[in-house]
Amino acid sequence: MSLKYGIIGTGGIGGYCGGKLAKAGKDVHFLFHTDYDYVKSHGLQIDSVNGDFHLSDINAYNSTKNMPQCDVVLVCLKSTNNYLLKDMLPPLLHKKTLVILIQNGIGLEEDLQKDFPELYIAAGLAFICSSKLGKGHILHQSLGKINIGDYSCHDSSILNHVLSDFQESSVGVELVDYREARWKKAVWNIPFNGMCVALNTTTDKLLAHPATQQLLHEMMLEVIRAANLSGSEHKIEESYADQMIELTKKMPPYAPSMKLDFDFHRPLEIYYIYSSPIIEAKKNGFDMVRVSMLEKQLKFIESSYLGVKE
Amino acid sequence: MSLKYGIIGTGGIGGYCGGKLAKAGKDVHFLFHTDYDYVKSHGLQIDSVNGDFHLSDINAYNSTKNMPQCDVVLVCLKSTNNYLLKDMLPPLLHKKTLVILIQNGIGLEEDLQKDFPELYIAAGLAFICSSKLGKGHILHQSLGKINIGDYSCHDSSILNHVLSDFQESSVGVELVDYREARWKKAVWNIPFNGMCVALNTTTDKLLAHPATQQLLHEMMLEVIRAANLSGSEHKIEESYADQMIELTKKMPPYAPSMKLDFDFHRPLEIYYIYSSPIIEAKKNGFDMVRVSMLEKQLKFIESSYLGVKE
Repeated sequence: MSLKYGIIGTGGIGGYCGGKLAKAGKDVHFLFHTDYDYVKSHGLQIDSVNGDFHLSDINAYNSTKNMPQCDVVLVCLKSTNNYLLKDMLPPLLHKKTLVILIQNGIGLEEDLQKDFPELYIAAGLAFICSSKLGKGHILHQSLGKINIGDYSCHDSSILNHVLSDFQESSVGVELVDYREARWKKAVWNIPFNGMCVALNTTTDKLLAHPATQQLLHEMMLEVIRAANLSGSEHKIEESYADQMIELTKKMPPYAPSMKLDFDFHRPLEIYYIYSSPIIEAKKNGFDMVRVSMLEKQLKFIESSYLGVKE
Repeated sequence: MSLKYGIIGTGGIGGYCGGKLAKAGKDVHFLFHTDYDYVKSHGLQIDSVNGDFHLSDINAYNSTKNMPQCDVVLVCLKSTNNYLLKDMLPPLLHKKTLVILIQNGIGLEEDLQKDFPELYIAAGLAFICSSKLGKGHILHQSLGKINIGDYSCHDSSILNHVLSDFQESSVGVELVDYREARWKKAVWNIPFNGMCVALNTTTDKLLAHPATQQLLHEMMLEVIRAANLSGSEHKIEESYADQMIELTKKMPPYAPSMKLDFDFHRPLEIYYIYSSPIIEAKKNGFDMVRVSMLEKQLKFIESSYLGVKE
């Protein structure tokens, strides 16, 4: 039996992962938004460091209502659009559909589960530098791994099937502890995304100044403390902050996704990357003071081009 | 006996105060930097909401070495230049000279006293919207008061003489508690100066967004807590933060002095407005977390046009 995949949001991550699966012969169905007409005529082009390829005849849709029921749904939307899932997902679901949220932040699975109490949900943590260059055109620049953390599936046969499909498609994949994986990614995402927006800069410049390097480190310690209060089985060591600083120093100058959203005046993923972990930490008795200050600065910055939302 | 005044730094504040004193017939000696030649030929022009006036024949100098000993020295430099005082002040000083530091921040008097252990020092807190428009040209837009807080003078005859000179010159003046006055001004200065730079905006826009209004309020509470640990006789109530928010809401859109320094790519007064109060609070066992985060952001921002300094 082969799995039927639905890709919700065919951007940098969805286009790359779905494209690799389709190229390997898997049964993949792509939801497009503005690119639908273009892709219907011209197909999907993926320029990758590991070799470019073109998919001329793909299963493209402009509404989930026209899509078949899927065994696995990869949600690759910006989390600012997650309010749409309540209406978008039902046509894709059968009793054992697994939905994998390949998104950044904390609390995404909990919120989706409230709307779909019986749904199998997992987290996908993308370590893939990939972006949409233009209509139906994806650029994959480096890395290429998805870590999957099981939230409410608990069905090892389907999880293992997904793992082997990804491996056969040359998409790196690993099964990881859900809570630890979400928070570990937050240790990097929370300081770097927001600080690159607040100071309108890139990772290398923030790390080149001792004041901002120290501040990033202090914010990472706040995230680690919040993580270790969140009920994860595995505690994150404080030294993980040092590792993340050193790792990022070795990276080329990098503009995180929120910086690109800011540059293009798109909504910022403030809720799931900032507000939701702040709320969870507060429930556990910890005030993330620096992260909360950055959250407020980001709300102000976003309102300067989108208007005040609260 | 009439007092001889020296004005060190003839910009918005020094030009206005010194100009008003000179106009009232007091014996005033002005130190100029780049404007010296211009003022020697053209005099000093003060455009004021309370009436414009011109001083065609003023005592202008381009070095304190050429100035007479003064009874009162008003230091109106940016505090980033205070390292110059060690060399600039001695020619002006006799045994009972009073130096009034009309500058923003915490710890200015303590630092000057280290270099001049016997010197009479007072703080001047300016509530004057005044700026230099061009060479020898001051624009006074609103308010016009200097609060004086005695630090190490303790000679009421000279303090009272200064007060009556200021009154005769129609410069508002009041004798206030030194420590309380410095910290009360910091309650406004610390949040608004830095946040207007960090978010490249003005006071009205910061207060129009609930997130940044809340953040400003939280930072004010940090400053009030630091103030109340600093050994001031009079405690500042937390409600003072609410008063400052409401007062600023009623002001026209305002760019604080640090915002102007940023706009013109001048050094920012980070040390005395941020680092020094943070250090004092830490000595008293309190970590000003939000203020420290803003300090680090400001260091990064300043380095983006002046280079990294630490």
